[in-house]
Amino acid sequence: MSSAAAQPLDGNPAARVLVAGASGFAGALAAQLVWRHPRLELAQVTARADAGARLDRLYPRYRVPLTLRELDLAQAEDTDAAIVAYPHGASAPVVAELRGLGVPVVDLSADFRLRDLPLYEKLYGGHGAPELLADAVYGLPELHREAVRGAELVANPGCYPTATILALAPLAEEGLIDDVVIDAKSGVSGAGRGGGEEMHFVSLDENAMPYKTAGHRHEPEIAQELGRVEGITFVPHLLPLDQGELATCFATLGEATSKEAIRDLYEKRYADEPFVHVLSGPPNLRALRDTNECHVYVTVEERGRVMAFAAIDNIWKGASSQGVQNLNLMLGIEETAGLL
Amino acid sequence: MSSAAAQPLDGNPAARVLVAGASGFAGALAAQLVWRHPRLELAQVTARADAGARLDRLYPRYRVPLTLRELDLAQAEDTDAAIVAYPHGASAPVVAELRGLGVPVVDLSADFRLRDLPLYEKLYGGHGAPELLADAVYGLPELHREAVRGAELVANPGCYPTATILALAPLAEEGLIDDVVIDAKSGVSGAGRGGGEEMHFVSLDENAMPYKTAGHRHEPEIAQELGRVEGITFVPHLLPLDQGELATCFATLGEATSKEAIRDLYEKRYADEPFVHVLSGPPNLRALRDTNECHVYVTVEERGRVMAFAAIDNIWKGASSQGVQNLNLMLGIEETAGLL
Amino acid sequence: MSSAAAQPLDGNPAARVLVAGASGFAGALAAQLVWRHPRLELAQVTARADAGARLDRLYPRYRVPLTLRELDLAQAEDTDAAIVAYPHGASAPVVAELRGLGVPVVDLSADFRLRDLPLYEKLYGGHGAPELLADAVYGLPELHREAVRGAELVANPGCYPTATILALAPLAEEGLIDDVVIDAKSGVSGAGRGGGEEMHFVSLDENAMPYKTAGHRHEPEIAQELGRVEGITFVPHLLPLDQGELATCFATLGEATSKEAIRDLYEKRYADEPFVHVLSGPPNLRALRDTNECHVYVTVEERGRVMAFAAIDNIWKGASSQGVQNLNLMLGIEETAGLL
Amino acid sequence: MSSAAAQPLDGNPAARVLVAGASGFAGALAAQLVWRHPRLELAQVTARADAGARLDRLYPRYRVPLTLRELDLAQAEDTDAAIVAYPHGASAPVVAELRGLGVPVVDLSADFRLRDLPLYEKLYGGHGAPELLADAVYGLPELHREAVRGAELVANPGCYPTATILALAPLAEEGLIDDVVIDAKSGVSGAGRGGGEEMHFVSLDENAMPYKTAGHRHEPEIAQELGRVEGITFVPHLLPLDQGELATCFATLGEATSKEAIRDLYEKRYADEPFVHVLSGPPNLRALRDTNECHVYVTVEERGRVMAFAAIDNIWKGASSQGVQNLNLMLGIEETAGLL
Repeated sequence: MSSAAAQPLDGNPAARVLVAGASGFAGALAAQLVWRHPRLELAQVTARADAGARLDRLYPRYRVPLTLRELDLAQAEDTDAAIVAYPHGASAPVVAELRGLGVPVVDLSADFRLRDLPLYEKLYGGHGAPELLADAVYGLPELHREAVRGAELVANPGCYPTATILALAPLAEEGLIDDVVIDAKSGVSGAGRGGGEEMHFVSLDENAMPYKTAGHRHEPEIAQELGRVEGITFVPHLLPLDQGELATCFATLGEATSKEAIRDLYEKRYADEPFVHVLSGPPNLRALRDTNECHVYVTVEERGRVMAFAAIDNIWKGASSQGVQNLNLMLGIEETAGLL
Repeated sequence: MSSAAAQPLDGNPAARVLVAGASGFAGALAAQLVWRHPRLELAQVTARADAGARLDRLYPRYRVPLTLRELDLAQAEDTDAAIVAYPHGASAPVVAELRGLGVPVVDLSADFRLRDLPLYEKLYGGHGAPELLADAVYGLPELHREAVRGAELVANPGCYPTATILALAPLAEEGLIDDVVIDAKSGVSGAGRGGGEEMHFVSLDENAMPYKTAGHRHEPEIAQELGRVEGITFVPHLLPLDQGELATCFATLGEATSKEAIRDLYEKRYADEPFVHVLSGPPNLRALRDTNECHVYVTVEERGRVMAFAAIDNIWKGASSQGVQNLNLMLGIEETAGLL
Repeated sequence: MSSAAAQPLDGNPAARVLVAGASGFAGALAAQLVWRHPRLELAQVTARADAGARLDRLYPRYRVPLTLRELDLAQAEDTDAAIVAYPHGASAPVVAELRGLGVPVVDLSADFRLRDLPLYEKLYGGHGAPELLADAVYGLPELHREAVRGAELVANPGCYPTATILALAPLAEEGLIDDVVIDAKSGVSGAGRGGGEEMHFVSLDENAMPYKTAGHRHEPEIAQELGRVEGITFVPHLLPLDQGELATCFATLGEATSKEAIRDLYEKRYADEPFVHVLSGPPNLRALRDTNECHVYVTVEERGRVMAFAAIDNIWKGASSQGVQNLNLMLGIEETAGLL
Repeated sequence: MSSAAAQPLDGNPAARVLVAGASGFAGALAAQLVWRHPRLELAQVTARADAGARLDRLYPRYRVPLTLRELDLAQAEDTDAAIVAYPHGASAPVVAELRGLGVPVVDLSADFRLRDLPLYEKLYGGHGAPELLADAVYGLPELHREAVRGAELVANPGCYPTATILALAPLAEEGLIDDVVIDAKSGVSGAGRGGGEEMHFVSLDENAMPYKTAGHRHEPEIAQELGRVEGITFVPHLLPLDQGELATCFATLGEATSKEAIRDLYEKRYADEPFVHVLSGPPNLRALRDTNECHVYVTVEERGRVMAFAAIDNIWKGASSQGVQNLNLMLGIEETAGLL
């Protein structure tokens, strides 16, 4: 059994990629994206809980006919890159081992996203590889493309920060934001494969709710990347749908600016971005399901407050396909390869 | 065929109620609530488009075995009260005719909600009965209970204002709010029975979206009722569910206040309210589906911003059951009758 | 805290009812139906796992402000009747204890539905109270109304048998069915509150599937009640919705019969039934959600095969509200009390 | 603007394909599948109602950046093949015009599926191009692969027949079926983009229903293809989901056969089929959403009745992607190209 990926278009050998933690939602999708990628070869898929199972039994729709194995570092040596999709905290030690072998890594967990170690420890507990933090690049290509190109360790952003930062970056980069309120809404897949009664169909069907209203862990990640913003208020909500994420941001600016100027700012900022589209009206989630796109809309209300909306697919641009976008950059492949 | 409502518990004759516009979502539910009400009798149900149809054919689940008729004012004379569920603009003339017969009216449309006639005309077009505006009471019992008791014409609030105002009233009444951002989310029934491709199942299933980002018509209604608030930003969103409405409000206060003080304020404010419950954690929509309840939760984030959440069922407390709550007050019946 | 149920209309004291196992979907709804019932008083709610919790915390929408207790038989002595909503197997011993105190019982489990003990043991394992089997009446009022009136122990049918038997009884009672194929479809609440990954929102959203294709446990229950039917094939399916159940039945008759004759048979058979409605077109699930109704439609295709459809709400007529209907009959209360 | 499709792998020029009727659900998906196909080039997209609109405005998720035009036969001359996605009845004249230009056509409508003209006229009304019926090949590749390869006009099967025929073909081809009952279930996209109140989100959410119980138009199509089956009963149901179709078939055989023999028959029959997978347990719809796959499961119940299940994505294998599969065969391209 061999992936079409083994024979890339231009004769160069495909890069061999390991996906570790491929039994969760994000890892499984990452595996599929690598599997069907024209320039990557899916060398190995590993998992802790489901080792021995075929990935296409667990996720039939992704049609990856490989068997999940326990992670074997001896075999990992042979790979050109890895995507690690372990839970927060469990990821860092695995990343460290792979980095020890010299394997470039995209880490989908939160373990290398925050540059501030004490803050990480406060939010997530002990860190398994703090010595690597300095090497890690925050993997939002729209902000850090060049750094990602040269990186050996990329910390892939979470779904909430991806949508929120893309909604606000044009303002933040100009130092315009005094204060911002973010009302974020996510589909259920963002909560992961685990979960008991709270994730029961009957609990979520025909329902919607805010949660973690007392400070979500993504707030510091957003603050780190937006840089010059003073005040951030962030509240996540769960919606009764599978895939999708919408960040509704209300920004108070330090100075009055016209709607036209703001729109112009956004359009220019994202003009060359292959995956960010500035729309002329409000976005919706169906329009980009199963894509790496981010749809942004910005407007200014009467009294000058900016309303910026960003919609993504939470497990694509908010996790796995963004991981592949980063991998493309790290490996010197066309950024959009396997993602259009 | 007779309703159980014809024999009220205490021997007093039931009040005879006309529901005009009973073929829409809100009117049909109002008819059912009157039908099963222990102190009201459903005297007549009228509709423009579906006259001749049995209401339990159009809405089988409501089980009201009456036939929709064209509105006949000769028969209306004989009723003790009316609920009018016509579209905005179409309602005012019907209300005027009923009032001309001396019939007390709860109007579910927007026609009598705004005290400012030019503002109404700007938002909705010409007004069919401006002379009645001065008589109308804004039918949010939690704010205007005594006025509703004495009213002959009650303007039932819309679903967005109901949730939003109940979320913010304790703060607004104390003059605490400098500025507030409202991110509101509604189930699809709030958009009414009409609507073409935009309301198609395939358009809304697994979707969510903001809409009317350039100033929703409910914003002035909210401003009118919250009174002393300087700045209001309001954005509505459509969610993939039938019934339910969630207002997430972010209020900036003029002075620093503790979480405890704010919670105390809310608990005291709503302590005696039969339908408003202040929760100790975030609300969710399923918990109150098909009820007249409003679930409120308030917290204060680190830097002092208040986050206030209110959840209601958009066609119950956001429309029809609140209409019955108002009717109960107007007719001197126990406020909770037929609603528990 | 007291229920309105404590003061029944006619001055008779309300019957005091215990609901055991009130923390599951069916038990919680049964508790609510008793709580709001004009002739019953909810004396006690018990549960094994959630004892100490308020029922309105677990099921806010049902608004029953009682605290779940461990079952205490000393207190049970004081009750006039009980609804037992324990899982299959766990129910029989509890029922036996309650019957030992002389308390009339409606059992929502499968434990007393099958008259054939060896068959029960084969399908469900050991039986905790086989000595009571002879006393148990199968609680489908439309078939066994008089027996239920005199019963002290009623075995409430499952949701699949309720829909299927009501779809087919008019034919079966006339001995017309040679062979029948039943394609049944259920909402997710029928699977109960438990369940891990299979019940995860993401597993069931936008999905549908047959299950237990190799002989569902409800098939013998259906066969027992339909009596003279030779061959029964039954396949259940899970649909992506909360409440609702649809049985599509294809019956081959022993003799040719006209569509008119069959429809006439159905209309006569159910003419006096308060909860079974014979429709003139195909049923749908929304039309009867949250009701005790069963909607039946029958037609005959060209070559003489009868197609009979029955729709119910699986946790109402398929479980809890049918339990109350049975309780009404056992206690000599109006059959429809608390159910309209 | 050019599709990647313009440079096929092996140096051969891509075939230029016209998609007519690309504004409906099936046509839009067909356009996207052609657009991203490595061996096809999307030459033109046409529509009647939405001419002038960009396809990626109507269907953003498909990301086809072409503008819909009115069909211009002068330009059509230049294309190598066409997919026609017009409504039944409207399709035949367009197909005739394209065929008059010598363009090979896959027609997604019902217009050329039935070989029996009077039967077509009875079910669909007058036929716009009866002279072409004799040329048309029924485009189910699993049954008619060789004929499709040589065809100039392929009648693409409907979604119900595709699932049903694939579920039953192994039995039918052996002449084993005496009688079969088909209970089919479809997602809402099968009903198309049109539709008023019946397709409203609120009408279908949390609902399910049988429809067209008095003889669905797909029954004769199924009968034609299954050939030697005596009796067919077919009932379609609508489920509350977007994409997916499940056919549950109950076949009575002329002779007793073991479960093993039947399973062996199915496995052999489909062993070489690239898109039909015989599962060892019941199928589900999520497993194949957005794929050209058909998942089949067969079992035999105690008394010898065969239960055969087939699941497909109704707008993929049930419409558009099957159209591309047919196109691949007609054009001499690898059958699976663009579909894996």
